[in-house]
Parts: sequence; structure tokens; C-alpha cells
Amino acid sequence: MLRLSTRGAGFDQAFRRLVRDRRESDEDVARDVARILSDVRNRGDEALIDLTTRFDGHSLSDEASWRIEPAACRDAFDALKPELRAALELAAERIRRYHEAQKPEDRDYTDETGVRLGAKWLPVDAAGLYVPGGRAAYPSSLLMNAIPAKVAGVERLVVVTPTPKGVMNPLVLAAAHLAGADEIWRIGGAQAVGALAYGTKRIQPVDVITGPGNAWVAEAKRQMFGVVGIDMVAGPSEILVIADGNNDPEWIAADLLSQAEHDPSSQSILITDDPLFADTVADRIKVEIAMLQTARVADQSWNKHGVIIEVQSLDEAPALANALAAEHVEIATDDPEALFTRIRHAGSVFLGRHTPEAVGDYVAGPNHVLPTGRRARFASGLSVLDFMKRTSFIQLDKRALQAIGPAAIALAEAEGLPAHARSIETRLGI
Amino acid sequence: MLRLSTRGAGFDQAFRRLVRDRRESDEDVARDVARILSDVRNRGDEALIDLTTRFDGHSLSDEASWRIEPAACRDAFDALKPELRAALELAAERIRRYHEAQKPEDRDYTDETGVRLGAKWLPVDAAGLYVPGGRAAYPSSLLMNAIPAKVAGVERLVVVTPTPKGVMNPLVLAAAHLAGADEIWRIGGAQAVGALAYGTKRIQPVDVITGPGNAWVAEAKRQMFGVVGIDMVAGPSEILVIADGNNDPEWIAADLLSQAEHDPSSQSILITDDPLFADTVADRIKVEIAMLQTARVADQSWNKHGVIIEVQSLDEAPALANALAAEHVEIATDDPEALFTRIRHAGSVFLGRHTPEAVGDYVAGPNHVLPTGRRARFASGLSVLDFMKRTSFIQLDKRALQAIGPAAIALAEAEGLPAHARSIETRLGI
Repeated sequence: MLRLSTRGAGFDQAFRRLVRDRRESDEDVARDVARILSDVRNRGDEALIDLTTRFDGHSLSDEASWRIEPAACRDAFDALKPELRAALELAAERIRRYHEAQKPEDRDYTDETGVRLGAKWLPVDAAGLYVPGGRAAYPSSLLMNAIPAKVAGVERLVVVTPTPKGVMNPLVLAAAHLAGADEIWRIGGAQAVGALAYGTKRIQPVDVITGPGNAWVAEAKRQMFGVVGIDMVAGPSEILVIADGNNDPEWIAADLLSQAEHDPSSQSILITDDPLFADTVADRIKVEIAMLQTARVADQSWNKHGVIIEVQSLDEAPALANALAAEHVEIATDDPEALFTRIRHAGSVFLGRHTPEAVGDYVAGPNHVLPTGRRARFASGLSVLDFMKRTSFIQLDKRALQAIGPAAIALAEAEGLPAHARSIETRLGI
Repeated sequence: MLRLSTRGAGFDQAFRRLVRDRRESDEDVARDVARILSDVRNRGDEALIDLTTRFDGHSLSDEASWRIEPAACRDAFDALKPELRAALELAAERIRRYHEAQKPEDRDYTDETGVRLGAKWLPVDAAGLYVPGGRAAYPSSLLMNAIPAKVAGVERLVVVTPTPKGVMNPLVLAAAHLAGADEIWRIGGAQAVGALAYGTKRIQPVDVITGPGNAWVAEAKRQMFGVVGIDMVAGPSEILVIADGNNDPEWIAADLLSQAEHDPSSQSILITDDPLFADTVADRIKVEIAMLQTARVADQSWNKHGVIIEVQSLDEAPALANALAAEHVEIATDDPEALFTRIRHAGSVFLGRHTPEAVGDYVAGPNHVLPTGRRARFASGLSVLDFMKRTSFIQLDKRALQAIGPAAIALAEAEGLPAHARSIETRLGI
């Protein structure tokens, strides 16, 4: 854990280093991924078979080894403990309602010149959703990715998920049932991203790929951007907690650890104006870690990437927060709004003392797929818009073309594009 | 030029080949670009000096060789012929009005559970705009990229443009004045994209990079995606004209050529149900090309990439158009709406006989930066949204946390994330 103070001598330099450290994948990963994608593009299903045997210890042989059938998902859903099923249903319902309101409105109007203008939003035909196996196999992620796609109106929602040594995660299957996945393929890694983007004999290509994954999956999505749409380039998760000294240190320690337990590369940062509170939280974190089943991961993350920044006044916090542009920002003060209005760059903000980030991960409603690694400077959380696209349209009659056509002709001629000018002139009889 | 008929024997195969042929940049370009970007990242301004000398024959020495000052842009604007200045102003005004209406609305509401939810849209701090030198130095492109950024509220708009052998394009400077560019740097190519993304000692980095460019620029933007936001991966331009036999062949020939004259790799496709009309258009194109100053480019494009597809009925056109997912689609019939409602994938659609695509390039109002190479399946034209990002927010009081917290605890426990559960339990005194 790194302890900084804005009053400290080397603060500016240390903070700049903190901001710049992107904790991203390296060039080896990029090369490996390029090789895998090209293999899948060239050899299709054969490449998938080889790579899945090699990386997942899972043999793609008969139909059941390739796909998980909807009936299996329904069974998994029916087998859930009632409490858990109700929790998943509450989450799905709240996510759906929040995202329904994101649906964009079409435009269609005729201006005073007689030019009809508009924009029409439509869903993509097919979306692919990556669901990790292993540590990060979260049913909540499946809901957060699948529900916006379904709300957008996507007709074909394809899930890919590795089943290492053949093992499936029943919670993920249950969530797939609840969210209405149309196909589930038992493949993972960069090869699954390649299969979704290029298509194979078995697997039809999709138009957009979303969903979390390790460094290989993230890099594969980055490399496939342009062949398909992707949600964003995802890096390690992060939280910034801005807290005054009037918080219960146990609450704030738990919030910082809820990020740290995700992955050893996760980052938790506390900004506080109370040095004593900072000490208490740091002590409390040690105690809490010991009690966690996820202690090993949380400990690694907090030791390696954890940061506590002491400020003289919380007035300094928004500028630091904007430079960090963190995925999650908690503002644990009595008047969170005062700081929130000054925060320009953040994936999602959690306001007040009773809003731990974890409610946003599951049941609040907004999406938990958020920009990491300072990308909140330019990127937004996943939304219905990621599964839709806009077609603009223009309609002129002769009178409207007479009104604005001559300006277009002048510009086309100035740009040295005579056929552009001609396409208007010939219609105006010029 | 390729002539196909849906009744022809090999149509399905030939059409599939047409759809798949993306006319994209190759691996050599990707390697060169990666090398240039890494050079700019490591050596900053020194790399820019070397590369600009090498590629543009322009020496970056004194201040004036690095930057174009706002005063020079104002002078260029003032020196425009009145007719051209009026045309630029009309274009800017119509583009501004269309894009003003794209500004998204914030959300902020409290639901019946007492959970406050919302989303706040903010502009990025800085946007970089690539403006090509040489053939594609279009003032209209500058307006189409800069105005949405300014409408979004971007405070720092940075233009990069190569000035080969020191030559500047006065029309581009005039447009930069009109659009309100804040900085103009005389650099181009992949190195300019790298400078905008990574920043150098002279040039502060930006958050989003947009604007057209050649294959190197497009590849550089693709490789920088994730470090910054980019508008899209742009490929060669294309038009699909759907026309019945009642059109003036001269009009349709001009429309097809207005795309062909852009670049030898541009593609123009005509779908018609009238074989005689197809013949007349094909003949007319030969005549028209001969009269164009852009004959060489238009001829190359039409010969190599032009396509005429005869259909039995225009009823077949929407399915073909959706497979092609073209950047521009013209529907030149009496009832264009009937076909338009069935078109799902297109960048922009031009309806009726009096709407040549060229009006959309300049003065109609909607953006002319549109998805190419079948990317209209998942991507949209440039808009105000490309220069903004959304921060979601959540606020709970204790009662609201009591209502939805237990479901989050159940899900966190099921996912094996005890610190997530603990951050809620500790607040509820569990």
C-alpha cells in the first residue's frame, strides 16, 4: 500500500506516476492473441477444437461438448435456492428498468427549407457475450451484458464461456436462462472472441462483442474492433473512495476490500482529509483481510496497488478524482453533491454513506460494466446504445434542392470534386 | 465494373464475395504504424521532426513551422470569395443545428424503493481532429468533425494536418476558423495520431481522435483505440444506389461517379430492376467520366470496384442492401419510404429522386462521417455522442439499502465475493 499526502514533498511526481501507471497487458499478449485470432480465422472449428483442448482441457467432440442447451439453463435456474433466485430476479428486473429508459428516440422532421431530416435507431442483428470461466464467472456480469442487448432488441444473443475440464457454472447457466441467451458455446479465451467476430462453420458471426475477460480476451476484443463493434477495452477494476473522518472505518475498509478481492491487479484508493481516519482504515483493512475467504487476492491487490492519499481539505478531491478518472467513485460525506458536481471523469459515482459500491455491482440498476484505466475520460459504461446503431436520412424535393443545392455545388467545386457538383446541377437543370 | 443479375447462375457466390471483400489495409501497414507510434511514444517531438521531414518534406524548426496561428485562419476566412464564404457558413449553420438536437439528456430520479439513480453526460476535455493534406483535404470534413465536438462542449479542439513541402490549404484554414479550432499542428500520418494520443512535450494529449485519413492514419487510430476514444475504423467510401427505370440516367450516373471520384478504392453500386436502364447508366458513366477533371480516379474506381446488380423486382433490394450495409444508400423511386422501412443497415439514406448523396456531404446537416466496409451493421455516423461520455450515479439511504441490500448480499455470496457482502452487511448492522 502506498501512502501519499498532498502536503508531502514528492506528491506531484508520485501522483503523476500513479495516474500514468495503466497496469495494462503487454506486447507478448498482443502477439499471442494475433496468432490465435489468425488461426481461428483460417482454420475455424478445427482451431477451436485444438485451442480448447490445449487451454481448457475440454474436448469439443459431440454436440453436447460444443453447446449448452437452453433446457440445461432452465434446469439450473429451477434448481436455485429460492432466496438466490429471488435475488437474481430482483437484479434482472431493476437492470431492465434502468436500461429501458436508455432507449434512444428516433428523429424525423422537415425544416423550414423543406429538407426532411432524421435518424433511425435499430438494434444490431446479433451480439456475442463473453462470460469468463474460473474466478470471474459472475452471473451478475451475464445479466449486465445480456439485458441491455435484449432491451435494445437484439434477436440473436450468443454466449461464449469456457468450461475448463468440462466443468460448467450452474449460476451462470441460470442467469443465461433468466436473461434469454439464444446460444451458448463452450469456448473461451481469444479463440472465442475470434470465432464470434469471424464466424466458423458451426458458429455464425455476430456484430458486437461485449463482456469481461482476462488480458487475452480484452486484447482479442481490442484487435477485433472494426471487424465487429466492442463495448470497450477493459483493464483491471478500480475504486476511489472519497471519505471524511466521520465515516465508520469498518464500512470504508470493506468498500476498499470489495474492489481488492476481485483480482490481484485491482486497485483501491482512499482520499481522506483525516490522517487519523486513514490510519484506522489501514489497520482495519489488515484485520478484515484476515477474515476473508478471498484474503489471498485482496491482500495482494491492497499491498501492491492500494493507495491512501491524505488531503488538507476534501476540496482537493475532485481534481485528483478527475486526473484518476476511476471506474468507481464513492463520495462518503454528508453533502456528496457538493463534490459530485465537480467530478467530470468517473465511470459511476456512489453518493453518500449508505451507498457501498457493491449495490451497484448487483441490484441498483445502472450497468456495472464501466470504463477502467482512466478511460472514463472518454468512455461510458455499457448501455443499450452499445447494441444499437443510428441511420441518418435526408429527403429533398426539387424546391429544397434549389434552396441548398447551390451552396453544395460551390463547396464541391472548391474541393475539386466536380461529379459531386454535377449530381446536383443536373437535377437543377444547370 | 462488375455486372450481376440475381437471376444469374453464380449470383449467390458472386454477391457473397462482394460482401466479404472489405478492401482493407494489410499487415504491412499495421507493422509500419506500430513502429511509428512506438517511436512517437518514446522520442516525442524528436520523432515528429524526423518523420515529418521524411514523409512530408516539411521541416519542423521554428514556432511557425510547428503551428498555424488562429490569425492565419481568420485571414484565410476573410480572403474567401463571398459565395464560398456564404456556402461554408450555410453548411456550418445547418450542421450545427442538426447536431444541437443530438445532445443527450441527463437523468436523475428516485424510484419507489428510495433508490436515487441517474446519468450525467459531460464532454471530453480535449478532442483531436485529423485533417488530411493532399487529395482529401476537405474543409467540409473539418466542419463535420469539429462542429459536433464544439456542440458537445469540448473546450480544447486540436487539429493536426500535414503541410507537404510546407504547403497549407487555405480552405481548410478558413473552415478551422469558422469551426473554432483551438490549436493547429502541422503534422500528419500515423505520427500525428500518436502525438495526439500519447502527447509530447509540445503537444498535450487529447481524449478522443476523429477525422478521416489514409490507410496509415486509419490503422493508427485503430491501434490507439483504448488509449483514447476514436470515432470509428474508416475504410474506403461507398455508395449504393437503388433506382427504378424511371430515373434520368444522367442523374444516377453522376451520383455513382460522385463516389467514384473520391478515391480509386471507392465503390459505387447500382441496384435496378430495369436492365435497359442499367445499360444506359453504364454508357452514360463512360461519357461523364471523360468530362470530369477527376476522370483518372473515377475511372479507376468504377472499373475496379463498380457494380451493377439487376434484380427482378426492387423488392429484392432491401435484403441485398442489408447484406452490403453500405455507407450511403440512395433510394431513387417514387415511394422511397416503402423500401427504406425495410433497410436495417446503412450509414445514411438519401430518399427520393431529388436527394443526391452530395447534398449530404456538404449542407443537409447530418454528419458525413459514416461507417464504411459493412460497419453500418454495428456502427453509427459521427455525432455529438462521440465527444461526450456518461457517468452513472447511485444514492441510497439506509431504508433503501435495507430494501435492496439483502439481494446484493445473496448474489455476492453466491459469486464468492465476501467483502462485497460485508460492505453492505456492516452498514445494515448484520
